[in-house]
Amino acid sequence: MMTPLSMNNSTVQALRKLLAQRSARHDDGRFVIEGPVSTAEAVAAGWNCLMQFVPEGSGVRIEGAGPVQELADGVFERVGSTKNPQAPLTVCEMPTASSADVLRDASFVVVLDQLNDPGNLGTILRSAEAAGADAVVLTPGSVDVYNPKVVRASASAIFHVPVVTATLEQVADAGLTLAGTTSHAFPGRSVVAHTAADLTGRVAIVMGNEAAGLPDEWNDEVGPIGLWLTIPHRGRTESLNVAMATTVLVFEVARQRT
Amino acid sequence: MMTPLSMNNSTVQALRKLLAQRSARHDDGRFVIEGPVSTAEAVAAGWNCLMQFVPEGSGVRIEGAGPVQELADGVFERVGSTKNPQAPLTVCEMPTASSADVLRDASFVVVLDQLNDPGNLGTILRSAEAAGADAVVLTPGSVDVYNPKVVRASASAIFHVPVVTATLEQVADAGLTLAGTTSHAFPGRSVVAHTAADLTGRVAIVMGNEAAGLPDEWNDEVGPIGLWLTIPHRGRTESLNVAMATTVLVFEVARQRT
Repeated sequence: MMTPLSMNNSTVQALRKLLAQRSARHDDGRFVIEGPVSTAEAVAAGWNCLMQFVPEGSGVRIEGAGPVQELADGVFERVGSTKNPQAPLTVCEMPTASSADVLRDASFVVVLDQLNDPGNLGTILRSAEAAGADAVVLTPGSVDVYNPKVVRASASAIFHVPVVTATLEQVADAGLTLAGTTSHAFPGRSVVAHTAADLTGRVAIVMGNEAAGLPDEWNDEVGPIGLWLTIPHRGRTESLNVAMATTVLVFEVARQRT
Repeated sequence: MMTPLSMNNSTVQALRKLLAQRSARHDDGRFVIEGPVSTAEAVAAGWNCLMQFVPEGSGVRIEGAGPVQELADGVFERVGSTKNPQAPLTVCEMPTASSADVLRDASFVVVLDQLNDPGNLGTILRSAEAAGADAVVLTPGSVDVYNPKVVRASASAIFHVPVVTATLEQVADAGLTLAGTTSHAFPGRSVVAHTAADLTGRVAIVMGNEAAGLPDEWNDEVGPIGLWLTIPHRGRTESLNVAMATTVLVFEVARQRT
């Protein structure tokens, strides 16, 4: 066991940056998993974990998650991304599969265009994984899937469904039909109820940003969307948020494919 | 306009109790709605609002939400249930419809047995309302639907779907088939995929507590459940939380009834 590290140790500073900065994570190709359950799930799913940080004197150690490094008294609590961080904080490598490789073989994909909220992304990863999606695609400018809040909110689903960054055009070029969702009527959009559309082919369910949705100017002629879906609401309109709407849609895809 | 009220004014103390204490709410038959959007939605939906509290000097006033009462400098911020409370804090009456009356005419109900989490209840109210449920039933011991966190998380759905307290036996006595959900195999339960079950009759979708689910000892012979449903997962089991699972189920009911 090495000496417990203090706050100003360079390794500890690097760990903090991985938790706090998207650019640090993607420059290094590494991110941080917090807690024993998520760490163990990542290891079991074959993710490559490099080092696990624990408080001084902690007996926590996850088999297969890399060497254990103690942090000096009080350091662990200051580094973790929550009020009461759980040990270990585990540094793991991001997977390297290219979006082209992932999309080529995918038959059922969820695409999130400019999604902002970490909690929404975590929930959508859970739904997509449970419904059997082959991949989740984030467009450039979306929230970072390796943000600690996303990793936590995904309840380990992140380790079980490939997540890649790609543009809508790249998804369409891979041969998937882009099924966009809309809750408003817009000129030139032929909208079909999600339960009436045929979602059994190679399909990408495209969800827009929380506030703006998909661009208003896209219709049947303009923009990459090949099929416009809507979830018929019996109540008021706009009563579902993006994570709930995605949950409804991915399980309709799953139902049609049963 | 009356004099702005100070913290120790008895009306302000009563307002605080309505926000903080379930017993105070139900003894008085009143609760508090926070913010202009929710207050306006409640008024539009015909709820009876009695008084609206605003910070001293605030120009906020929602038409139809009762007389305006100013709170002295700093009092409004201390009374509201969030860090940055939005004006007005509106005291409204709970509806008085009996569970028997609501259930007699209901054809599609969501029953939450011992649900604990305010955020989950808020989300479920949104889903149930959007999917066209006639009512949401809470069993005794569940979280209070008039908890400020629930009111907020429901995004005004609470004003558009009746919510009553009743036991599972009372729901069954009203002639609804109780469709319970299970994610584990238990002895003596004949489980059907939610998409394969006939949910077009008078049905109550019954969801259990976040941690425990429905009682393990209930099976086809024991307990009030007439039909056991499961959501087939393509991924790991247990990847959906109760709010997400309810969302999937209520939209399957809606689909079958289209």
